[in-house]
Amino acid sequence: MSHHRSAFFISDRTGITAESLGHTLLTQFDALDFQRETVPFVDTVEKARALAERISEIAERDHLRPLVFTSIVNPEVREALRLNNVVLIDFFESFIGHLEIELGQKATLTVGKAHGMVNEEKYDHRIEAVNFSLNHDDGVKLKDLHEADVILVGVSRSGKTPTCLYLALQYGIRAANYPLTPEDLGSPTLPKMLLPFKDKMFGLTIDPNRLHHIRSERRPDSKYASMDNCRREVNEAESMFRHHGVPFISTTHKSIEEIASTIMHKAALGRKF
Amino acid sequence: MSHHRSAFFISDRTGITAESLGHTLLTQFDALDFQRETVPFVDTVEKARALAERISEIAERDHLRPLVFTSIVNPEVREALRLNNVVLIDFFESFIGHLEIELGQKATLTVGKAHGMVNEEKYDHRIEAVNFSLNHDDGVKLKDLHEADVILVGVSRSGKTPTCLYLALQYGIRAANYPLTPEDLGSPTLPKMLLPFKDKMFGLTIDPNRLHHIRSERRPDSKYASMDNCRREVNEAESMFRHHGVPFISTTHKSIEEIASTIMHKAALGRKF
Repeated sequence: MSHHRSAFFISDRTGITAESLGHTLLTQFDALDFQRETVPFVDTVEKARALAERISEIAERDHLRPLVFTSIVNPEVREALRLNNVVLIDFFESFIGHLEIELGQKATLTVGKAHGMVNEEKYDHRIEAVNFSLNHDDGVKLKDLHEADVILVGVSRSGKTPTCLYLALQYGIRAANYPLTPEDLGSPTLPKMLLPFKDKMFGLTIDPNRLHHIRSERRPDSKYASMDNCRREVNEAESMFRHHGVPFISTTHKSIEEIASTIMHKAALGRKF
Repeated sequence: MSHHRSAFFISDRTGITAESLGHTLLTQFDALDFQRETVPFVDTVEKARALAERISEIAERDHLRPLVFTSIVNPEVREALRLNNVVLIDFFESFIGHLEIELGQKATLTVGKAHGMVNEEKYDHRIEAVNFSLNHDDGVKLKDLHEADVILVGVSRSGKTPTCLYLALQYGIRAANYPLTPEDLGSPTLPKMLLPFKDKMFGLTIDPNRLHHIRSERRPDSKYASMDNCRREVNEAESMFRHHGVPFISTTHKSIEEIASTIMHKAALGRKF
């Protein structure tokens, strides 16, 4: 008998929704091991039947009913996954009836709108945000900085770049970033090029031990990565944020998602696409 | 009376899960307008009570019961949002009991694991993937290309860069990209630097009209953006993909999520973090 319980996240489109909620639920049972598989684009009865057959075989092999999380919109496709030997958790069917009654409307049963292309204009805005963030990743380009929605500021390797890209991709936010150099850190004023944009600044800080670890992977035994230097830079950066009233958060124990959604929340930014 | 129905996506952490499924459900009612608000980090009874008060006021103002989608784990926090004048759609409570019975375990009720930091090693892998994709965004760096999980190939502005960044951020995939130049397109062979990595290549194509539109925004009235040139480049790129058996998809009507999950699926890539 297998020690793993199989878990499937099945969707008629990208699988993002089914995976996201399924994953949230499974993390509540961390004593158990799950063999996870995401199956996107199950959008015909034929595909659903073929998949159902495969899942049935796994159920027999494991002697454990696989967990099947689905967000499939089409009732016939969904029906093909309704097997005796699986635990079906149907995110769509569970709520759509309730909503239909409350809203006094039938669901349109259109597929793939949540993570599909809404319209080209909004899409272009999103791509522009990605390009903006790529072009303002090093902090040296003053050009167009007034178009930034937010400017992340922090010492080297504090998490600015991935956060900016995530903000752009997920929220359509034009996120520039500015790495604080030793010269900036020694100065009593904010970096000169940021002065006109003080209201857009958001600071990132990080535990010096973690920073030391990250920098050591890049440049072992350098002054840059030394514990002393990391501690000093982080102290000076935090002093700067406090002194000038720049909001800031620590990235140490946060995922990119958590850093980004915290910034969206604290800086009162809204989704742009 | 307002014409908008208010909809809240409430979470004790990032709000990604509540927003994702809530959004999926609401797209089924596209004749209606929703006033959407995501409220992350509602992780105490006090915060939930303050929010409940605000939602109650909106319910009275609108004379319409707001829709409240939540994925909050803590039962007491959840309870504080249980108002008479809202429609509560509770993603956590709806399924967790069923899963507890099936799995023979109590939910641990830990918060924020789904989009939180799992462990530093996996996290570092993800950041490395982002850095890899940034460093291999222009196709000129041969160095480390053997470490790529996938190499996206396509003409300029076919969607390679945002897709690579998304693959890195969301799946931890090291995604390089290579823009096909006019010289590449005129050649009967694959670009020389890609020859050793043919199995990692994945092509992106795009409708010439859409490409013409996108390029015209960047360089209006250029040869680069001209309809003739766009049509020719796309034709030659698709011929190259077909001739050399490189799998490819069109990005024209697809969101970044759809392009990325299609590539994951067709190239049989697995999540790396």
